[in-house]
Amino acid sequence: MAKITTRSPLAPDSFPELPVIKGVRFASVAAGVRYAGRTDVMLAHLAPGSTVAGVFTRSATRSAPVLDCQAKIGMHTDDGAAIIVNSGNSNAFTGRNGIESTRAVTSAVALAMDLPESRVFSSSTGVIGEPLPHGRITAKIDELVAALDEGGISGAAQAIMTTDTFPKGAMASVDLPGGTVKIAGMAKGSGMIAPDMATMLVYIFTDAAISAGDLQTLVSRLNHKTFNCITVDSDTSTSDTLLMGATGASGVTVTAEEDAFSDALHGVMLDLAHQVVKDGEGATKFVTVNVTGAKTAADARTHALSIANSPLVKTALAGEDPNWGRIVMAVGKSGAAADRDALSIRFGDILVAENGWVSPDYKEDLGAAHMKQPEITINVDIGLGDGAATIWTCDLTHGYISINADYRS
Amino acid sequence: MAKITTRSPLAPDSFPELPVIKGVRFASVAAGVRYAGRTDVMLAHLAPGSTVAGVFTRSATRSAPVLDCQAKIGMHTDDGAAIIVNSGNSNAFTGRNGIESTRAVTSAVALAMDLPESRVFSSSTGVIGEPLPHGRITAKIDELVAALDEGGISGAAQAIMTTDTFPKGAMASVDLPGGTVKIAGMAKGSGMIAPDMATMLVYIFTDAAISAGDLQTLVSRLNHKTFNCITVDSDTSTSDTLLMGATGASGVTVTAEEDAFSDALHGVMLDLAHQVVKDGEGATKFVTVNVTGAKTAADARTHALSIANSPLVKTALAGEDPNWGRIVMAVGKSGAAADRDALSIRFGDILVAENGWVSPDYKEDLGAAHMKQPEITINVDIGLGDGAATIWTCDLTHGYISINADYRS
Repeated sequence: MAKITTRSPLAPDSFPELPVIKGVRFASVAAGVRYAGRTDVMLAHLAPGSTVAGVFTRSATRSAPVLDCQAKIGMHTDDGAAIIVNSGNSNAFTGRNGIESTRAVTSAVALAMDLPESRVFSSSTGVIGEPLPHGRITAKIDELVAALDEGGISGAAQAIMTTDTFPKGAMASVDLPGGTVKIAGMAKGSGMIAPDMATMLVYIFTDAAISAGDLQTLVSRLNHKTFNCITVDSDTSTSDTLLMGATGASGVTVTAEEDAFSDALHGVMLDLAHQVVKDGEGATKFVTVNVTGAKTAADARTHALSIANSPLVKTALAGEDPNWGRIVMAVGKSGAAADRDALSIRFGDILVAENGWVSPDYKEDLGAAHMKQPEITINVDIGLGDGAATIWTCDLTHGYISINADYRS
Repeated sequence: MAKITTRSPLAPDSFPELPVIKGVRFASVAAGVRYAGRTDVMLAHLAPGSTVAGVFTRSATRSAPVLDCQAKIGMHTDDGAAIIVNSGNSNAFTGRNGIESTRAVTSAVALAMDLPESRVFSSSTGVIGEPLPHGRITAKIDELVAALDEGGISGAAQAIMTTDTFPKGAMASVDLPGGTVKIAGMAKGSGMIAPDMATMLVYIFTDAAISAGDLQTLVSRLNHKTFNCITVDSDTSTSDTLLMGATGASGVTVTAEEDAFSDALHGVMLDLAHQVVKDGEGATKFVTVNVTGAKTAADARTHALSIANSPLVKTALAGEDPNWGRIVMAVGKSGAAADRDALSIRFGDILVAENGWVSPDYKEDLGAAHMKQPEITINVDIGLGDGAATIWTCDLTHGYISINADYRS
């Protein structure tokens, strides 16, 4: 399997200091699911009274743990909850065996922690199509339960990595009239991040008190503006999962309409989503694609994704080539409404093209200088309406080919 | 600009012997539009009484010559027709200037050949967004007209190349009750084939007598089964053009319902389409993706394109990795109907996966051996209905990145 040992050039300097979220404890362990010499299973426990919400891949070939989570996510009880995650094997496309493996793991956790099975959520990330050696995980559950600790989140963020080059965490603290609430989250992956590897996994925790329904509303709404707006290679995992737990331990109650909390959660989710892109396979550029002036917001999103997923745009970015003709091409092919002569394109603030042709003031060295930066912004105004969308992506480099073609499992 | 001097490993041994199509003459010339030391403009003349049909890119940012061809294609006269094509500059996204350049070229040809302007079709392929130096082309028109020759088709196929690694030609001869008719065609490109380069161009000629309406019906129908079923990198050119001319010089009349003629034309178009894929940027594998058992033909096409355009599937092919999990992923993400447990996947005749899991009889070395071949077939049965589709594509290699990122214009 691919060993990508170089840390992404776009990685943050260090893992952030995440606050303790009262009511959540974490543990991680080396179970040898596939990797040797590293942790590969994490367990999180949420205190009784916690609410849980989640969003999942819409793939028609989603994995057994995803199907299991989706069946459980609406079934609220006051018993507390657990999340168990392994790396090294995605338990996807594993037939009936996969369902049994998922049940073996979640029922063992339920038994060990005295929880109803409906409150034990699991995720698996790694190779597709190989049976999950669930016995290696269940053999470690007592050890995990004994090790649960409020301060264990950074170890947990390490354990869920596959070939991620850095662990991903983000936090926020929100002062509300009733007191302060905290949010801490972790993520792994970047689409289908490495050979046979699948999955973006995200786990976010807060000590706010919020109903399960309101938490689901918030998570679903913010997911559309964060994780659903990133793309590394247009390939959608069979295992993508975002779970959020709220313990209520702060004693501060919030609703889905509490803007300060929503904004803070939005910030945490966006931070984690950006970190996923910054760890994209072979990425050397972090790219923001803003589309404005489209007929509808859906059209804006279609144009932005067409630009962000175009192999020719992405290779031009890798080559630091201000190749705006390829952006014109990507808008033209997207299928959403566009008028060649109404279109304008900017690299950052630099006006490149308008009125159906290159701007008379555009100088190629200005565009080339913008492309040299590690973070690049492409602004496209379609000139037809008010629809807007932003997509974040990375470039397409030799590193991507090396990770996905040259290395073999 | 990229200089790709290595001939594609998938190229045919040599350019085929194309028959003379009575009523069509060709010439080519070095006009220095952008390249030095090679021909870059070709002219074809069709005798009076010929019919012409065409299909074009559906890009919303299509080029000035494409818009001009589309306006003219239905306007039949008995005056004969001309097609003039330059490489090196696509005259796309060139604003009002682009329209004027197209008109300058087509009106000069019309004047020199005593044709109505509505019967002079033009194509341009190359850099997007730079003004076409049309004076270099119009300066050569007298020379081109003087050089027109029935045997000039292979020279013409050379002149329309940009960074193609081989010229593309195909032919057929059809024995009908009324006599024999011949078909000869040429093509260039492969989607957006090289830095700043756009365009797939195809020109096909026959000496059959066929009405303009029937010719258009046939070309449109067969285009859906040939050129519309290939993808190199999912990026659609602003200039794609297919023009077909029928001179009637054989004296044999055919209709859109003449199966022998339709089959022969289908063969020529498919041959040219496959050659375009075989010259795909960096291609080392020619890949046929057959999807059967989908709910509808449209669903089958969606699944097949999702597989053929997936960067992870394409890099696995480049790595000769029988990574069927990525095919499962691509089916799952496509958005068309699929049921994980009804799906089956074969590499050639080798059954890889069925009933939601790897087949018990599948051996990885069998899959790996299939992947070593230069031509690979992926057969996916969705198991839900009768919808079927085939897409042809190539792998995604370091060569693609080198052509599109490392080299600069």
